[in-house]
Amino acid sequence: MSDPIRIGLVGIGKIARDQHVPVLRASPRFTLVASASRHGRVEGLPGHTSLEDMLAAETIDAVALCQPPQVRFAAARTALLAGKHVLLEKPPGATLAEVEILRAVARDQGVTLFASWHSRHAAGVAPARAWCDGKTLRRVAITWKEDVRYWHPGQDWIWQAGGMGVFDPGINALSIATAILPPFFLTDGTLEVPANRAAPIAADLTFADAAGTPIHAVFDWRQTGPQTWDIVIETDAGRAVLSEGGSMLTIDGAAQPLPPEAEYRGLYDHFADLVAAGESDVDVAPLRHVADAFLRATRREVEAFDD
Amino acid sequence: MSDPIRIGLVGIGKIARDQHVPVLRASPRFTLVASASRHGRVEGLPGHTSLEDMLAAETIDAVALCQPPQVRFAAARTALLAGKHVLLEKPPGATLAEVEILRAVARDQGVTLFASWHSRHAAGVAPARAWCDGKTLRRVAITWKEDVRYWHPGQDWIWQAGGMGVFDPGINALSIATAILPPFFLTDGTLEVPANRAAPIAADLTFADAAGTPIHAVFDWRQTGPQTWDIVIETDAGRAVLSEGGSMLTIDGAAQPLPPEAEYRGLYDHFADLVAAGESDVDVAPLRHVADAFLRATRREVEAFDD
Repeated sequence: MSDPIRIGLVGIGKIARDQHVPVLRASPRFTLVASASRHGRVEGLPGHTSLEDMLAAETIDAVALCQPPQVRFAAARTALLAGKHVLLEKPPGATLAEVEILRAVARDQGVTLFASWHSRHAAGVAPARAWCDGKTLRRVAITWKEDVRYWHPGQDWIWQAGGMGVFDPGINALSIATAILPPFFLTDGTLEVPANRAAPIAADLTFADAAGTPIHAVFDWRQTGPQTWDIVIETDAGRAVLSEGGSMLTIDGAAQPLPPEAEYRGLYDHFADLVAAGESDVDVAPLRHVADAFLRATRREVEAFDD
Repeated sequence: MSDPIRIGLVGIGKIARDQHVPVLRASPRFTLVASASRHGRVEGLPGHTSLEDMLAAETIDAVALCQPPQVRFAAARTALLAGKHVLLEKPPGATLAEVEILRAVARDQGVTLFASWHSRHAAGVAPARAWCDGKTLRRVAITWKEDVRYWHPGQDWIWQAGGMGVFDPGINALSIATAILPPFFLTDGTLEVPANRAAPIAADLTFADAAGTPIHAVFDWRQTGPQTWDIVIETDAGRAVLSEGGSMLTIDGAAQPLPPEAEYRGLYDHFADLVAAGESDVDVAPLRHVADAFLRATRREVEAFDD
């Protein structure tokens, strides 16, 4: 086994603390060297206030970028040009075009760029993909309903232009669907936008694959009580239900045995594999579907929403 | 020289009559065999009411698809699966995802797919690109202002969701800019949407290339009087002005000699070259910028607009 990858973490917020730091500290394939963040720090680690300071002061091979997407491009480009491998939290950018530029920079520099989608590493995703293989799809229903007041209290940026609104969780569903299903595209849709917000609170999206199989997705941020993160796949040879965001899989009514949740461990293992192989993994399909929805769907104003 | 490519034209509306038919009839590289259109016909040609009927009745090598983008996917896929080379009018689809599916189908079938952008064949575009080569960009200003009442009278579909509004002409500017400039991406923007419409009537877009060079685009459909289709490129070694939609080029104040307008002849010559070489040309960059603008820019309601 090669030496651990020395990595710096950029953007110390909730997702970095909850997932990236503990997973990197537990991984034999990485050494977490330092952090860079305007305000946040990680206990026991050198904390820099900018990526540039961290790159100047530390010996690292890679960086993981966890800032909001609106400010991530410049940091990613700086790190790639410094010869570092780069992991991007989801979504990989605020636009599709900037991700294409980063893809080219990584290629020119000969380093790894990984546009990560953590939900793809949920325990049920790979078994669901394997189960679908060779079957004929009949219909797919994606339901992603959660309570934004619980998950994103007071996060104004998520409601602003570029913040994507309910597509912030919805893109996780799309990242799973694009990993499991044949390629599909939006044929019709509605975005519900609160009168006092710029981004949608709900979306109803009709997709089809090339053969015309209907794929219907409903995203809603107004769900109180039980939360729903389900994908139901009906085929000519049975029915799979991927639930709890991909961590549970039921096939024809029978719950499948799955390992415990380890999304970010799987994500970082894949990053280490990419670095070892000298490859990149930049799949923009989930973000492309979001952009297509903003481009193609009808917007409808709904009642104001405050959190 | 190889035999002319036998081609069928699908979607007989204004653009087909004004450009495709006369250019195909004058080209030594094509034989225009038949048309398919629900309502339109071309005098002197077998006219079918569906693509399927045309494919069954005629011996053709290729089709050119001129329907509105919302209904183009199924026709393009049908033609590709029948082994025909396919030319798509701009934009190549109503979504980015569907174009990726077509790209894969063409590859699997071993036929040519050409996502065409007619403005790229304007006389000044190639000289402007050559002039930019090796110079350092300082600033770019794109101004595309026209009178929608003159150019698109009563075309309701263009104002509906998926119709793109002012990006219908604006995407021509973006198709030129993406052919001339280094890759760029949207950093901020505003879309002005009339109170009674779904699609924008104006857009103010701030882009940057990887180095941070400002690229500013203004699209407006409310221009009466003289129309404006200009791209001004300022570099460390002079200033180029591409005007009249790319058909005039002025460098440091001096008008450059250019051949007369022949956009669609150039477009079809390129298609014939692609078919001869067994290659495809599917550059989604202009449509990607439009989707990015819908995703990222702020929407602002403006006064109702009727034509």
